[in-house]
Amino acid sequence: MTNRKIRVGIVGASGYTGSELARFLIHHPEVEIAVITSESHTGKPFSVLHPQFIGQLDLTLVSAKEIASSSLDVVFLALPHGVSMKYVASWKDQDFKIIDLSGDFRLNNPEVYASWYNKEHTFPAGFEGAVYGLPEIHETDIKKAKLIANPGCYPTAAILALAPLYAGDQIVPESVVIDAKSGITGAGIKASATNHFSNVNENFKAYGLTNHRHTIEIEEQLGHLKQKEIKVQFTPHLLPLDRGILVTAYATPRGEITQEQLQSIYKNFYNGRPFVRLREDLPTLKDVRGSNYCDIHVTYDNRTDRIIAIATIDNLAKGAASQAIQNMNLMLGLPETLGLMFNPLKP
Amino acid sequence: MTNRKIRVGIVGASGYTGSELARFLIHHPEVEIAVITSESHTGKPFSVLHPQFIGQLDLTLVSAKEIASSSLDVVFLALPHGVSMKYVASWKDQDFKIIDLSGDFRLNNPEVYASWYNKEHTFPAGFEGAVYGLPEIHETDIKKAKLIANPGCYPTAAILALAPLYAGDQIVPESVVIDAKSGITGAGIKASATNHFSNVNENFKAYGLTNHRHTIEIEEQLGHLKQKEIKVQFTPHLLPLDRGILVTAYATPRGEITQEQLQSIYKNFYNGRPFVRLREDLPTLKDVRGSNYCDIHVTYDNRTDRIIAIATIDNLAKGAASQAIQNMNLMLGLPETLGLMFNPLKP
Amino acid sequence: MTNRKIRVGIVGASGYTGSELARFLIHHPEVEIAVITSESHTGKPFSVLHPQFIGQLDLTLVSAKEIASSSLDVVFLALPHGVSMKYVASWKDQDFKIIDLSGDFRLNNPEVYASWYNKEHTFPAGFEGAVYGLPEIHETDIKKAKLIANPGCYPTAAILALAPLYAGDQIVPESVVIDAKSGITGAGIKASATNHFSNVNENFKAYGLTNHRHTIEIEEQLGHLKQKEIKVQFTPHLLPLDRGILVTAYATPRGEITQEQLQSIYKNFYNGRPFVRLREDLPTLKDVRGSNYCDIHVTYDNRTDRIIAIATIDNLAKGAASQAIQNMNLMLGLPETLGLMFNPLKP
Amino acid sequence: MTNRKIRVGIVGASGYTGSELARFLIHHPEVEIAVITSESHTGKPFSVLHPQFIGQLDLTLVSAKEIASSSLDVVFLALPHGVSMKYVASWKDQDFKIIDLSGDFRLNNPEVYASWYNKEHTFPAGFEGAVYGLPEIHETDIKKAKLIANPGCYPTAAILALAPLYAGDQIVPESVVIDAKSGITGAGIKASATNHFSNVNENFKAYGLTNHRHTIEIEEQLGHLKQKEIKVQFTPHLLPLDRGILVTAYATPRGEITQEQLQSIYKNFYNGRPFVRLREDLPTLKDVRGSNYCDIHVTYDNRTDRIIAIATIDNLAKGAASQAIQNMNLMLGLPETLGLMFNPLKP
Repeated sequence: MTNRKIRVGIVGASGYTGSELARFLIHHPEVEIAVITSESHTGKPFSVLHPQFIGQLDLTLVSAKEIASSSLDVVFLALPHGVSMKYVASWKDQDFKIIDLSGDFRLNNPEVYASWYNKEHTFPAGFEGAVYGLPEIHETDIKKAKLIANPGCYPTAAILALAPLYAGDQIVPESVVIDAKSGITGAGIKASATNHFSNVNENFKAYGLTNHRHTIEIEEQLGHLKQKEIKVQFTPHLLPLDRGILVTAYATPRGEITQEQLQSIYKNFYNGRPFVRLREDLPTLKDVRGSNYCDIHVTYDNRTDRIIAIATIDNLAKGAASQAIQNMNLMLGLPETLGLMFNPLKP
Repeated sequence: MTNRKIRVGIVGASGYTGSELARFLIHHPEVEIAVITSESHTGKPFSVLHPQFIGQLDLTLVSAKEIASSSLDVVFLALPHGVSMKYVASWKDQDFKIIDLSGDFRLNNPEVYASWYNKEHTFPAGFEGAVYGLPEIHETDIKKAKLIANPGCYPTAAILALAPLYAGDQIVPESVVIDAKSGITGAGIKASATNHFSNVNENFKAYGLTNHRHTIEIEEQLGHLKQKEIKVQFTPHLLPLDRGILVTAYATPRGEITQEQLQSIYKNFYNGRPFVRLREDLPTLKDVRGSNYCDIHVTYDNRTDRIIAIATIDNLAKGAASQAIQNMNLMLGLPETLGLMFNPLKP
Repeated sequence: MTNRKIRVGIVGASGYTGSELARFLIHHPEVEIAVITSESHTGKPFSVLHPQFIGQLDLTLVSAKEIASSSLDVVFLALPHGVSMKYVASWKDQDFKIIDLSGDFRLNNPEVYASWYNKEHTFPAGFEGAVYGLPEIHETDIKKAKLIANPGCYPTAAILALAPLYAGDQIVPESVVIDAKSGITGAGIKASATNHFSNVNENFKAYGLTNHRHTIEIEEQLGHLKQKEIKVQFTPHLLPLDRGILVTAYATPRGEITQEQLQSIYKNFYNGRPFVRLREDLPTLKDVRGSNYCDIHVTYDNRTDRIIAIATIDNLAKGAASQAIQNMNLMLGLPETLGLMFNPLKP
Repeated sequence: MTNRKIRVGIVGASGYTGSELARFLIHHPEVEIAVITSESHTGKPFSVLHPQFIGQLDLTLVSAKEIASSSLDVVFLALPHGVSMKYVASWKDQDFKIIDLSGDFRLNNPEVYASWYNKEHTFPAGFEGAVYGLPEIHETDIKKAKLIANPGCYPTAAILALAPLYAGDQIVPESVVIDAKSGITGAGIKASATNHFSNVNENFKAYGLTNHRHTIEIEEQLGHLKQKEIKVQFTPHLLPLDRGILVTAYATPRGEITQEQLQSIYKNFYNGRPFVRLREDLPTLKDVRGSNYCDIHVTYDNRTDRIIAIATIDNLAKGAASQAIQNMNLMLGLPETLGLMFNPLKP
């Protein structure tokens, strides 16, 4: 690589993942944010949408039509599912690498997509080269990929919580219950009854019982590790806070196991992974807020013969933007941690 | 009953259950709050500890030694476990009825108590006449009781969520996972790192994995319904809000079941119970905040063959104070709902 | 009055003031909620919009066209300004009393209305008989009124904080600064960027500098007390919480004053007013949450020769719904406190 | 400067300012955190106290006695007032520079200190060389200082809000009212009733009326700008959030002024200051959260002839830790912004 910085584009300026990508990329030593796009705010400075960036990122927003001619190395798509696929299709002959933060290319094939997203996929060929961008599982493929399907927020936490158990064939597959809790930013920036302050504040509820789209994403990825189809019980809940996902996963072991063996399985599986922190105490959401860390705790309950695995992430960071940059680092042969070692904001 | 009002005493003025008892009792048409005690604040008005009561309840606090001579009909103990039992012992020959909101007489016997509370019980004879005060399960016994062990907050929600399934022998007992989430008032009024604002706010965590004291209380009560010993997986979590418990319970049915059958089981079980509301949509904590309601939703997931039961309560109300008054109403032959039909405070 | 209950109608079911009126009226011993209207949800039960009322208030919503023929005694208008005036005009020959919770009839005349609300008033004749419904100031007129303009939330707190000083001509009029802070429910139930959880939570800001509509309402009412036109500096801020307004008001005394004199002025002014609590310590929002109380603290700062008056209310209760019911009680000759003595919900 | 990094020590590991200093310093390109001290946690890793640092800052805590022999260039004191002065005294002959984040050397002299802090100062000689570390006002002196008294959080916001007006002699001095609102981290990490979650959450109150210690700090600094003694009305309030101070300051202009002139006064005063952002819209706390920015908005109200200046900071960052590092940069001749250009965490 010459001295020239990596030129990146962010498609979709107005949402949380767009601004979170900017928050990390602005400090990445090898990156220049060359273009940020918005169809509805073209011509405005980025910092008008997100005033926290005043003085640091006042770049004028342009249309996504400018992407193709902008000599970019990497394009991040911070768009809703269903929209991303159109851009990916239109850029299929471009040289730049694409990291898609939507759900459009995360699943195994267009048929599964159609059945869980209730719409036909308009660029089925895109699945061909797409790599599921969870670096702790797919590092080798990510390094060679041109199109990354950046994982969903819940799947990131759920898969990292359970992967060592599936990979080692340690558990009764149908025993798995994933009780997940997320902050409200997972529901996006657009105002709705769901994110009205007084509906969220001092409140808590389950939602999406039995049919949340992230269920199939979790099942496919954990199934790959076990090399068979599996099912999980996945129940998301909405926390009265901005950022963070905590997953409490329950599984029955196939045979005898001890706390020591369990911890050793996790330690071996995540050996050398800079962003997974195995913790003996119980992790809290603020310990990872604003960072790319995933903290994991695992306990074996003798009394009930059940394994409990708890994982915490920031849904906008490891669950979206900073994980996308981790993927970028791998794709470009940069150190995996470059530009990502920010400390959690606590308190 | 003559025209004379029921004279009640509240032992333990300084905590949340003490003030919550007062909030309800002050509006109870048949009750006079005759005495409130505090050993550390004797001589002060109750409203100095809880300024929300200024002008409504300025009663001077006295020592609990005054209880025996105060011509009371009912005494509520709003004290920590380990303290309650001493008062219960000292009043064993008194005529008044006692409703103990601590954990001291909730379990089957002193031995179980000792093993889960890590201390010897100093009044084992008290277990004799004590009745577990969950009116939706033990109404008949409650009506005859002289000593009520008012249920724990988590057990109230967990038992009400699962009782119809255990009573009907509908589920594989060892399959049950209870993932519970509580607001911080469950941890009491005394300042500690646990309830420091910045440790709770914008944060979330599990705690008490595998050994929380409420586990055995849930197991004993659900076991009674099934008339055998059972075990559950119980995991509490701490929500960044004041009031409310939401329990998400998972169970595998023993045989075939449909959504309609499931709802019908719950409907029959809770038929005529004024404070249980079966809901087809998903309940939220604010729908019950400040009230004696328990909202329950139940779903059968065809895909995974699993039942999900969700229950919500206000931990200080149905999980403590207003449930205690519901018990009082039953013990005194009053209408079960008297003084308790306040609407939830929402938003 | 016969044994027949007072029949009330609530026009506008979907917002917070509508549900808050219901929360209080449902327990009012002399009231029957006869009709609740909604144009967009006609035919649904009230409790579908506000699930906290399931089992307690499942009344079917009807169109406001039903109001005239419903034999009502009192109609509460829980509508946006600009909409209320049309209904008031259409019911000008009806016998029932009207309590309008909007801003449509609060100001002195239609011209002032036009200049601060930026729209022509379409029922100027309505100002004739309208009485500003702040019972602590206008009790006599309220008792005789047929149309009550229920005060705004900020004005309720600001006027009660300062009225004794203006009434007694104690202060330099142009010295008054009113720094006000409100919870988000003041911005209504309709989802918008303003009330998006992540814009409010962990955040705080001023808004409406120099031109908030409540400014003129405060100025007119305080001016009446002094019998001259006055101006105040009014700055609202948005708190990250649901309910509550705290006003911190600053004023320079006209002559010498002592802390004792100051407290005595307030004590005399509010003598016998059941819902104003003068406090020597500093009031907090939770001390009044969910109640009709207004807590007031006043301090004279010797060092700077300035008076600081702090008032707290629940913006949905004393700042809207329960104050409306207080007005109803006075209009109907009922005890002022009837159905309103609920304790604040704390914690 | 040679290639050797600047060796810094942080005295006082357990509090929020200690961990916030670490959060910034860990990414400062010229700094090595050589020592962190704690008397009560000696021997433990720093990350045990603050688990967010696991894997990034696991340095073993030592006693402050180790400071003198640790070849440090800069020592940050993150200690309570009254404690700092003892360390400063004991290190008076050491070569390293000291940045004291407590209030011990902020005031003009020991006598003023004694009267506002209610204790005798035990190292009055320390006032001699101490420089008040507000870089936007005292840059020249800071560059030459050996001991910096890092400003209080409220004073930082209040002084920056008003300095241009005092410096230019634009206002009637006795007209100034500073209504300030702070997040709870300003009250420290030690658990108390003040910071109990349920006392803060959904709540709001004023405190420290007429006599908060930051009053005199603000008065002295603004008085220096005007070269005479001045008084301000300062009222702090407690917000239900972790981080952030918003100051709403009111002042009456001495003569005629326009909005344009006012903005121009601020623009000139803060010309070239990288961390002050003058905003035409209204700033919010989250726009500066976690950063060293101070956002300022100023409005002239024609109707009332009054100036309103609003300033926002993060109390732990610009109000404490990152401002201390800004001072360090100036003292060491480094670029003022080095290691400090992190973006606010929003949402």
